[in-house]
Amino acid sequence: MLVSYVSYTGSGRTMLSVSGTAMSVSDMEEFLAREYPQSFGPGRHHRIEAIAPGAATVRLEASKEHLRPGGTVSGPALMALADITMYVALLAELGPITLAVTTNLNINFLRKPEPGAVIADAHLIKVGKRLAVGEIGLRTSKSHELVAHCVATYSIPAHS
Amino acid sequence: MLVSYVSYTGSGRTMLSVSGTAMSVSDMEEFLAREYPQSFGPGRHHRIEAIAPGAATVRLEASKEHLRPGGTVSGPALMALADITMYVALLAELGPITLAVTTNLNINFLRKPEPGAVIADAHLIKVGKRLAVGEIGLRTSKSHELVAHCVATYSIPAHS
Amino acid sequence: MLVSYVSYTGSGRTMLSVSGTAMSVSDMEEFLAREYPQSFGPGRHHRIEAIAPGAATVRLEASKEHLRPGGTVSGPALMALADITMYVALLAELGPITLAVTTNLNINFLRKPEPGAVIADAHLIKVGKRLAVGEIGLRTSKSHELVAHCVATYSIPAHS
Amino acid sequence: MLVSYVSYTGSGRTMLSVSGTAMSVSDMEEFLAREYPQSFGPGRHHRIEAIAPGAATVRLEASKEHLRPGGTVSGPALMALADITMYVALLAELGPITLAVTTNLNINFLRKPEPGAVIADAHLIKVGKRLAVGEIGLRTSKSHELVAHCVATYSIPAHS
Repeated sequence: MLVSYVSYTGSGRTMLSVSGTAMSVSDMEEFLAREYPQSFGPGRHHRIEAIAPGAATVRLEASKEHLRPGGTVSGPALMALADITMYVALLAELGPITLAVTTNLNINFLRKPEPGAVIADAHLIKVGKRLAVGEIGLRTSKSHELVAHCVATYSIPAHS
Repeated sequence: MLVSYVSYTGSGRTMLSVSGTAMSVSDMEEFLAREYPQSFGPGRHHRIEAIAPGAATVRLEASKEHLRPGGTVSGPALMALADITMYVALLAELGPITLAVTTNLNINFLRKPEPGAVIADAHLIKVGKRLAVGEIGLRTSKSHELVAHCVATYSIPAHS
Repeated sequence: MLVSYVSYTGSGRTMLSVSGTAMSVSDMEEFLAREYPQSFGPGRHHRIEAIAPGAATVRLEASKEHLRPGGTVSGPALMALADITMYVALLAELGPITLAVTTNLNINFLRKPEPGAVIADAHLIKVGKRLAVGEIGLRTSKSHELVAHCVATYSIPAHS
Repeated sequence: MLVSYVSYTGSGRTMLSVSGTAMSVSDMEEFLAREYPQSFGPGRHHRIEAIAPGAATVRLEASKEHLRPGGTVSGPALMALADITMYVALLAELGPITLAVTTNLNINFLRKPEPGAVIADAHLIKVGKRLAVGEIGLRTSKSHELVAHCVATYSIPAHS
């Protein structure tokens, strides 16, 4: 899905974006650090890996607070990652819309993730006048097999 | 649903349980502090308010890490609370089953919760041989109106 | 939920309604025979058992076309019944709104229904400006145990 | 997904299958006419367009009974099509398993389908020991835009 990237460097790491997104990555990071201060920003565990119009990839470097006994990433940490990645895809499509709220989220947990980073790929299936629906696949950095699959709906403010 | 409580005091606060649960509240708290160390135990934000066979009420004292700008409790914090409360209801029904895992969770966000404590009431709809399904309603401490409604499925180990 | 009925007789059978519904049962039946001609009306298999503001009970007299081998009512027949009953609850709350459409439906199949009539009870959890969310429990006429549990969201036209 | 077809002709029309499926198309059609007599078989409205291991495409020639006023295909008809197509994908992967039952189905209705045939593409996301999860996209024969998106879970009998 995220085919034609131009490379971008911010905060000492490489990120990917494509032309046509509604926000630049740096604007989005600033926006997210303000909106999701627990998730993004200095010392936080989520970071944007790539964006494209209507699509986003976000990485969670799971730390102690996201783990269950045995070292597996907890269900709630996966749900939060899915929700956040959907939101980033929406920002990439529509720009900085603070009034977008999740109305429905349905997640299937497929495999226990191995310890380590979890990566979520979101893409929008539909952006309507009132509702946007997207699909989010979650995998570890070690395998392409999905650990969880999620579909989420956001209520979005009127837009043109 | 949680009709006939006997009162219980642990850690300086009053809790409610009913006879017939598969675990005592104190055993459950010890178990949860071990299984969900980020959520239960000293300095953590979730606590059991009441249990009955197949039912549980858990309270989240939302702190800075659970809030969105404007003081509202974040979606991921609500999802985590719903998942945890379902798990507590399962423990109350089946006893300490560490191998129970969420397979599906579907949540509808209904209203923006006002700042403050959020309370989740879970009850099991079905406990089968392989799967248990439960319903979880989330409300604030100030109103009976639901802020979110959730249905979750757990895969459970074989039991008699 | 459906506590204070006044009795109603139409088409040679007794139906129940409560004061305060946005439509009378006879108006609703006429409306449904037009909107859902495959489901309601002469020779069709669904009928309204009771309505109240924001709530409805609909009965499916399963016939050959709704059955799977072994005589059990098919999943699609249960999904259709759930969707229809939610719609009837919405009509009971808001009146004859033809523009209401289902946006999301999530169903858990809990037990194989025994052959015979299936009864669905729907009640609205939330009626917002744009979306209405309801819960639907399905059972057979022989038991109070749920055979399926459903949560559905309808997009509704602007209303006061 | 369905890349390397070998062509197949049955009942006067062309169907596609790939080597590696657990059943041949003709065996599957016979099986489905028995299991879903309302949907498959002579005079029925569903037909298999293509199968591959873990994937299937099924076409619904919507007739009067599937339509809402205005000629649009009804939600229940779309839900039935999604459920059936998931089942066909499961048969293509596992062979003739009559004991597979849907445990959860979550569907988002995205656009009103135009009158005409509706086509569903299903692929399995996970086939575990107890549960199989699949994704189903529904579109009309006239456009690639999805009219509905569905995720379904089947409980499957023990298999090797």
